[in-house]
Amino acid sequence: MVKGNVSLQKKLDSACNSILDQVGRGHVADYIPALARIDIKKFGASILTIEGEKASYGDAQESFSIQSISKVFSLTLVLSKIGDELWKRVNHEPSGNSFNSIVQLEMEKGIPRNPFINAGALVLCDILLNGRSTEACLSSILDLFHKVANDETIQIDEEVASSELKTAHRNLSLANFMKSCKNIHHTVQEVLDVYCHQCSIAMNCEQMSRSLLFLSKEGLDPLTNNRIITQEMARRINSIMMLCGHYDASGDFAYRVGLPGKSGVGGGIVVVVPEVGVITVWSPGLNKNGNSLAGSAALEAIARTLNWNIL
Amino acid sequence: MVKGNVSLQKKLDSACNSILDQVGRGHVADYIPALARIDIKKFGASILTIEGEKASYGDAQESFSIQSISKVFSLTLVLSKIGDELWKRVNHEPSGNSFNSIVQLEMEKGIPRNPFINAGALVLCDILLNGRSTEACLSSILDLFHKVANDETIQIDEEVASSELKTAHRNLSLANFMKSCKNIHHTVQEVLDVYCHQCSIAMNCEQMSRSLLFLSKEGLDPLTNNRIITQEMARRINSIMMLCGHYDASGDFAYRVGLPGKSGVGGGIVVVVPEVGVITVWSPGLNKNGNSLAGSAALEAIARTLNWNIL
Amino acid sequence: MVKGNVSLQKKLDSACNSILDQVGRGHVADYIPALARIDIKKFGASILTIEGEKASYGDAQESFSIQSISKVFSLTLVLSKIGDELWKRVNHEPSGNSFNSIVQLEMEKGIPRNPFINAGALVLCDILLNGRSTEACLSSILDLFHKVANDETIQIDEEVASSELKTAHRNLSLANFMKSCKNIHHTVQEVLDVYCHQCSIAMNCEQMSRSLLFLSKEGLDPLTNNRIITQEMARRINSIMMLCGHYDASGDFAYRVGLPGKSGVGGGIVVVVPEVGVITVWSPGLNKNGNSLAGSAALEAIARTLNWNIL
Amino acid sequence: MVKGNVSLQKKLDSACNSILDQVGRGHVADYIPALARIDIKKFGASILTIEGEKASYGDAQESFSIQSISKVFSLTLVLSKIGDELWKRVNHEPSGNSFNSIVQLEMEKGIPRNPFINAGALVLCDILLNGRSTEACLSSILDLFHKVANDETIQIDEEVASSELKTAHRNLSLANFMKSCKNIHHTVQEVLDVYCHQCSIAMNCEQMSRSLLFLSKEGLDPLTNNRIITQEMARRINSIMMLCGHYDASGDFAYRVGLPGKSGVGGGIVVVVPEVGVITVWSPGLNKNGNSLAGSAALEAIARTLNWNIL
Repeated sequence: MVKGNVSLQKKLDSACNSILDQVGRGHVADYIPALARIDIKKFGASILTIEGEKASYGDAQESFSIQSISKVFSLTLVLSKIGDELWKRVNHEPSGNSFNSIVQLEMEKGIPRNPFINAGALVLCDILLNGRSTEACLSSILDLFHKVANDETIQIDEEVASSELKTAHRNLSLANFMKSCKNIHHTVQEVLDVYCHQCSIAMNCEQMSRSLLFLSKEGLDPLTNNRIITQEMARRINSIMMLCGHYDASGDFAYRVGLPGKSGVGGGIVVVVPEVGVITVWSPGLNKNGNSLAGSAALEAIARTLNWNIL
Repeated sequence: MVKGNVSLQKKLDSACNSILDQVGRGHVADYIPALARIDIKKFGASILTIEGEKASYGDAQESFSIQSISKVFSLTLVLSKIGDELWKRVNHEPSGNSFNSIVQLEMEKGIPRNPFINAGALVLCDILLNGRSTEACLSSILDLFHKVANDETIQIDEEVASSELKTAHRNLSLANFMKSCKNIHHTVQEVLDVYCHQCSIAMNCEQMSRSLLFLSKEGLDPLTNNRIITQEMARRINSIMMLCGHYDASGDFAYRVGLPGKSGVGGGIVVVVPEVGVITVWSPGLNKNGNSLAGSAALEAIARTLNWNIL
Repeated sequence: MVKGNVSLQKKLDSACNSILDQVGRGHVADYIPALARIDIKKFGASILTIEGEKASYGDAQESFSIQSISKVFSLTLVLSKIGDELWKRVNHEPSGNSFNSIVQLEMEKGIPRNPFINAGALVLCDILLNGRSTEACLSSILDLFHKVANDETIQIDEEVASSELKTAHRNLSLANFMKSCKNIHHTVQEVLDVYCHQCSIAMNCEQMSRSLLFLSKEGLDPLTNNRIITQEMARRINSIMMLCGHYDASGDFAYRVGLPGKSGVGGGIVVVVPEVGVITVWSPGLNKNGNSLAGSAALEAIARTLNWNIL
Repeated sequence: MVKGNVSLQKKLDSACNSILDQVGRGHVADYIPALARIDIKKFGASILTIEGEKASYGDAQESFSIQSISKVFSLTLVLSKIGDELWKRVNHEPSGNSFNSIVQLEMEKGIPRNPFINAGALVLCDILLNGRSTEACLSSILDLFHKVANDETIQIDEEVASSELKTAHRNLSLANFMKSCKNIHHTVQEVLDVYCHQCSIAMNCEQMSRSLLFLSKEGLDPLTNNRIITQEMARRINSIMMLCGHYDASGDFAYRVGLPGKSGVGGGIVVVVPEVGVITVWSPGLNKNGNSLAGSAALEAIARTLNWNIL
């Protein structure tokens, strides 16, 4: 059902070519040993429209660690399970602080500012556990990936997961803090286990664009007509991506790109263009805010070239 | 050129009628004596589309104090004058704190988080002064209002302005703080003078919808074909409204309404629907975040009824 | 060598009797189950002078959990081992925040404000571990207690220690945070183990007064002539007790009592009177700052009655 | 009644000589133009005991701007007028932040942490105004100086006062903030006027030692037998000097010197030795915390040489 589109491909090529000097700049996330080894020169991009037209560039078929982009999937799962009940345990405001800040958490008594900062994502994991084993929980998370990507091959990179678990002191600090505020119900170890494994899912740009296509069509997968989530919830996920998707650089991303998106320290960024499609880019070099340096530049160029902007 | 639209009017009536029980609830801004006297039972709403179709409800032709909505106009003026130079003196990230917080200002050495918190708007006034007298500066601000509203009758309510100047201690604190950081160049008194007068401009819902119509058409006034600002800058103003338009409830507004908007403590809220039009509501009762309680509910109902949502 | 003193006893009785209406008020520390069971009506007091004169009141011979008072002992041990090297890893300023605050820790990149807030005491434990097993480390800590108290019977209450370890989420959060800042060198579990056991040492008022007598005689035990620590270090420990001994109520304690002291959530408070002696009080009911309510009142009365004040 | 003491003089000489290499280091307070001109090489020291024995060194008879040391005098005046009523409007805890921080003020709703940070001292001035003109208020403040110094020649340096008033933006920010919290009752301009004039009082080291001699004798001037303040209040002023006298370096000063003291950005530091006397030092070069660099070193040396330490 998915097919190439010559004009779309030309525009993607032109936009990506214009920012190639940015590739290789910045720094690779070095606090996770398994990520520190990635070649900083990698760059891939993929577009998929709701009509099933696609275009790819560079390393679009090479897997990367999706890291925080996984939070969009766990938010989808939690909202489809418990809906607005979620907001009793997490807020949905921009944080104004960096992704792993604990200051806000103390001020607000253990309620994370939004589901995309680490503290918020840990609460999502706690909710998804729901009394089950970490294996059962992770299996249900992978099920969602397989369903929305229409692809059963997506897997967790166990080496990355185990590397993250060994260096998770900051996240352990956040989880223990919320546990002391009674906003984590399972053991901290179980929550961290789910969190680190979910972050370690490996996907390529094309898989990622396919996976989140339902968010560009109000919750409906436009290629299969499967409803993944309600229209209302899809829009709300997009609003949280728009306001909180890039940590404390969310305002700058909205200013420059004007589209809901989510980045990860693995160097991936995915952007939803409502009623149009999805763009995914990947390049491991990060800027000072922890977002892909070349990826951000590429998205800005792609969105401008295609004139895809909701504002 | 502007004309009524029966179907639009019916939908506006239906949406407004559904939230009338909210009118009169909340509290009127009481720190400005001249505002504290306003009848909390007032409620008006106005829609204007880029095709010039309009609909009005209730007190849509009664003037209210636009207060912080004025910041959209001064941002437009500053961006059209100095463009991205602005961002050396103000950031464009959500604040995560309340509109008059000084904490963030100390942490970030006198650089306000965005142009819509009070500190940021004070810097806008300082830039607009540009060595001129406060009268000359205010005159150029009013010129913009007259131009975008296509209406020369819009004026400053001098009684409100003088009332605000007398109780401006918090804003004096913010301005003096930034002056000590060398981010205010004129005297604090001049800056406050411009700020309080600009906030005291009085408009009704219909005038407000007309005024910001250019933001729903990428910077071009669709009814006169006058370009007010570039496409790029119009989108960027919209992005800042989307992320920062409702103080520390911006995330909630985006979550529930999904459109760029700006509120004021006078009880007005204006929302831009890109490629569609503008909605303005007014009701003086405020919720705990300082946004119109009935107005927020009305906007949510109107946007849902019309299915106007960019996400 | 220690002997009763009739006049001292009369004054202690009179001071204690004057505040008996405070006994039983406040709340018992309830986050540690083994402490929550203590009878809130208990009250003991003990004075020991550098001449070996003593006076006791009420439950002065009943053991209580010394909790944070243990930090004076670990500070003594660390300063006698590594001296001013300590200050590379902990500061010695009042915190201005509550005892388990993590905000300051994030602002100051994992360097605790002083050795008496929990974060600082955890670093002391990390230093004391020094590559050894927790058993070896705890044994060396107990050695100090036995030496300064001249009493080999002082022991850890294992039930309290195990109760604390089960509810140590906030301290786990602090330790993991510092570990992520590389200011904890052993495993978080080892550090917590030492910390919770050290806090669970049980002593009575008389033992406590005897133990810290060396701090009232510039580091020399006046009854045995053993030097415990240098004059300079003894004074410095006293200065930290004076400025930081009562969490965010240290200023109030200095204002009302004017003597260096240290409190614990077990309800004990010990006060050093330089060149004079030591006063210990114990009563489990705590005020809102986590300090013994009746104990604080008693100390104020005792110090006033005896006119013991260094200011 | 005051007389030289050969042995005291020798010890003072020896201590001061040992730190002469520190004189001229650091930076002179440059935000007040009239202070920026002071010769950084100046150094004076003065000791006065409760027996009336004195010793002086270097520029001990040259006037300097006492700046924040004036806060000890205004605190004395306020406590003698309204006693513990003061604590409804100011706290007496160490701040943990720098002297002009506004963060704490926002967190604690306009109640300054203690009377020695700028915000607290501004409240003291507001209390001293008590409905009077600034002239009447300043006259009553000068009366206290004349009385405790036994010297009618002490005056305000009007040039410094006017220089401070012109650059008082940070203090205007603090005062306006507290005014917005209703913790300033007079106009901000009146409060600033009193504050800047009081800070601009000029004294030399000998006058300063003489002035605060009453704090080393529990509120009684030992040379005239005049009671300046009650014993209890004198001790309480000393406790606040001990805990809050050196901004966010108060812990370090207590650690190194172990005596209550107060510093000013003019380069003066005064230290009270209970039951013994007063030491004043002056040298304009400041360290990064805003305390006299050579002065701090001198005080540490003098206190050690004389073995004057209350801990």
